[in-house]
Amino acid sequence: MARKIVIVGGGAGGMGAAGGVKAADPKAEVIVYTGFDDVAYSPCGIPYVHGREIENFEKLFLASKQAYVDAGIDVHYNTDVTSVDVKRKVVQVAGEGEVEWDALVLATGFNYADPGVPGGDLGGLYYVKNIREAMEWDKVLDTVKSAVVVQATPLGVEMVTALGHRGIETHLVDPSPWPMSEVADPDIMAPVEESWRELGVITHFNTTLKAFVGDGQLAAVQTSDGEIKADLAVVCTHKEPNTALGVAAGLKTGSTGGIIVDERMATSGPGVFAAGDCTEIPHGLSGVPLQGLTGSHAYAQGKTAGINAGGGQRTYSAVYVPWGTAAGKWIIGGASFGETTATALGIPYVVGTAQGISRARYYPGVKPVKVKLLAQPGSLRLLGAQMVGGEGIKERADFLAMAVKFGFTLHDLARMENVYSPAIGALNEPIVVAAQSGLDAVSKN
Amino acid sequence: MARKIVIVGGGAGGMGAAGGVKAADPKAEVIVYTGFDDVAYSPCGIPYVHGREIENFEKLFLASKQAYVDAGIDVHYNTDVTSVDVKRKVVQVAGEGEVEWDALVLATGFNYADPGVPGGDLGGLYYVKNIREAMEWDKVLDTVKSAVVVQATPLGVEMVTALGHRGIETHLVDPSPWPMSEVADPDIMAPVEESWRELGVITHFNTTLKAFVGDGQLAAVQTSDGEIKADLAVVCTHKEPNTALGVAAGLKTGSTGGIIVDERMATSGPGVFAAGDCTEIPHGLSGVPLQGLTGSHAYAQGKTAGINAGGGQRTYSAVYVPWGTAAGKWIIGGASFGETTATALGIPYVVGTAQGISRARYYPGVKPVKVKLLAQPGSLRLLGAQMVGGEGIKERADFLAMAVKFGFTLHDLARMENVYSPAIGALNEPIVVAAQSGLDAVSKN
Repeated sequence: MARKIVIVGGGAGGMGAAGGVKAADPKAEVIVYTGFDDVAYSPCGIPYVHGREIENFEKLFLASKQAYVDAGIDVHYNTDVTSVDVKRKVVQVAGEGEVEWDALVLATGFNYADPGVPGGDLGGLYYVKNIREAMEWDKVLDTVKSAVVVQATPLGVEMVTALGHRGIETHLVDPSPWPMSEVADPDIMAPVEESWRELGVITHFNTTLKAFVGDGQLAAVQTSDGEIKADLAVVCTHKEPNTALGVAAGLKTGSTGGIIVDERMATSGPGVFAAGDCTEIPHGLSGVPLQGLTGSHAYAQGKTAGINAGGGQRTYSAVYVPWGTAAGKWIIGGASFGETTATALGIPYVVGTAQGISRARYYPGVKPVKVKLLAQPGSLRLLGAQMVGGEGIKERADFLAMAVKFGFTLHDLARMENVYSPAIGALNEPIVVAAQSGLDAVSKN
Repeated sequence: MARKIVIVGGGAGGMGAAGGVKAADPKAEVIVYTGFDDVAYSPCGIPYVHGREIENFEKLFLASKQAYVDAGIDVHYNTDVTSVDVKRKVVQVAGEGEVEWDALVLATGFNYADPGVPGGDLGGLYYVKNIREAMEWDKVLDTVKSAVVVQATPLGVEMVTALGHRGIETHLVDPSPWPMSEVADPDIMAPVEESWRELGVITHFNTTLKAFVGDGQLAAVQTSDGEIKADLAVVCTHKEPNTALGVAAGLKTGSTGGIIVDERMATSGPGVFAAGDCTEIPHGLSGVPLQGLTGSHAYAQGKTAGINAGGGQRTYSAVYVPWGTAAGKWIIGGASFGETTATALGIPYVVGTAQGISRARYYPGVKPVKVKLLAQPGSLRLLGAQMVGGEGIKERADFLAMAVKFGFTLHDLARMENVYSPAIGALNEPIVVAAQSGLDAVSKN
């Protein structure tokens, strides 16, 4: 009899898992349950449609429903899985009753943290997540005069930029002294803040959210810095792992609240795997569990979970977290961690920085590229990197995450060869210059 | 008494050396001899001014003459060093007589290989090298109706693209079956050839140059494929190391004709260093000596030579050669070697390829990125890579050269994390997909 795999969640983790099962065992029966109307679209694109960089929401769909039917993946839309019984190997599905499985993959994603202030039930509070809702909210944006983005999380940064581009009076309220303060360093974010000011965005850092105010519909946002009139609040609080099903089923969770998985993405429940934002994964260097990584991580984790659920063998490693995004008129990114995180973790480091350029100085389209490298004192082994600039940030972040993983030192990076060709690269690669500046700083001490 | 360093050559190697000496010993006396009017401009930018991508030649100057005076670097322009006496530690300089040195750096660059056909003394034959001459030739380009580019070397590829952009009827004559056939694979160059056709370029591959024809001034180019009427021929033959001075002084040269240097960039002559296109450097994997690398290589070699000449200590390693350039409407690039070179060297390999994209499929400006990876059978250690696409090629080439150097395998690359953010990177990094495709191909055998 065919192996039967049930997957809960239709995001990157769930759909990665579905593909993984089929790769390992093409004959397996694969059922995906999602609470939404769609799978296989790119939620990461939503802020860019709101910002009018992308024409319309239809562009975000990656595959047709028929494509999954053709691939033998049975997606049940708008269905609610209400409980998991690990011992009996069944899930309860609203309207379908009990469904048996040989292996189960939980890819239940995240919920935004409750902002925890009065007025959370008012109209005009937008939580960015589902594409159908985003289409409705996009119409609302046409009528909005003033909006508040709550918290400069990565999504918050994208939404501030999007609303600014859209020409809406945009306020950002964040309790920290600079945006994305949990991952990015202030010197990296300073140019982003400046470009927001150019867009007319009004930032309120070191500012606590007090209440959403209005009569049924949002009229203003109360903060420690005073009241901001607003028709719309985009709530971009932290992503909390959505583990309700897993916890009720007795699965172990970790310090972030995410489901604990081993390198096969197997949970503490026999036959139960998990992937994506509902899990936690250790950082490769520090061992600190991380949660709320990217869609690319969720997809790779899902694929690993699916392959193992389907009887194959694949492992997923600790993460070194290359990251990046457009922010204001810049691209920011990095790998592993920056100064802020290193300091918070009590990890000593030396720093090398460089303000470089992306092409020959005289070539049209040349953009600045600032690179900051953190290395372990003594060994000078790379600990992490942060960047801000105009282009090539994503590719450098991917590389630098591998450089951290494989233990490259500032010496290795300072002697790195680089492409020099006017249209695509400068004589001096900024990574090389940053590494050399780190070596120079160390040799002077 | 201050150490006295003489440098012959004012290109990237020579000026890198001058800076290197000053870094090691700020009190050293540094004299640079150049046969030209200028130092410190970017010759690599010349084709792009001809192609009108860059506004004018003035943009190519990197530093003023005063900047070198201020740095304590004494540049002698339009001077000819006629001989080197290694035993007596002197050079003969035309018009200056004998000049003593404590250490000497030869950075005498390259000469274009003689095309070896009749008519080489006609007017209308352009050898791209010196910026002042390029300014004159640029005026000639305004009057040219039809031009022939001789050989699809990297410079040839840039000049074909430039003349095509300039609206000149452009022919390319090359004895090989595809452009840059000594380094690039045909599948990588096919899109470039196609984009040349869109520009109106007429390519003549497998075609031998027979003669330049004309009465004092070029009128046509004779080839094995017939005669091509032309007002101009841009001779882009191979770069041969310019070693006349070094050879006459008794320095050892290697199989490419380049001056042999050790890891300190020291030649066989005591106190004599060399850097740039006049030297040869071993390939890190194959050990095969390479000559005619990039300005970035010359600069780093010069810096190493200068630091050692100035009493410091720095080593330069074997090279893994990340390379890249704009070509037609595409960017091509790679690291180490491709299939053509591996086959020529008798190095066995397995291949993984991927046709990926540079951003989210739906994000404006998304470009294709094709990645081909070569790995050693068995170990699956990366041997080299080639790419063609729209953006991010240079940064990937830099990374992949390091991946070859540090022995990354297809397994390592297939498990690489990558940034996913719509404006800057796709869900699937093409390097990862290419590595996985290589693994899949191997597991099927």
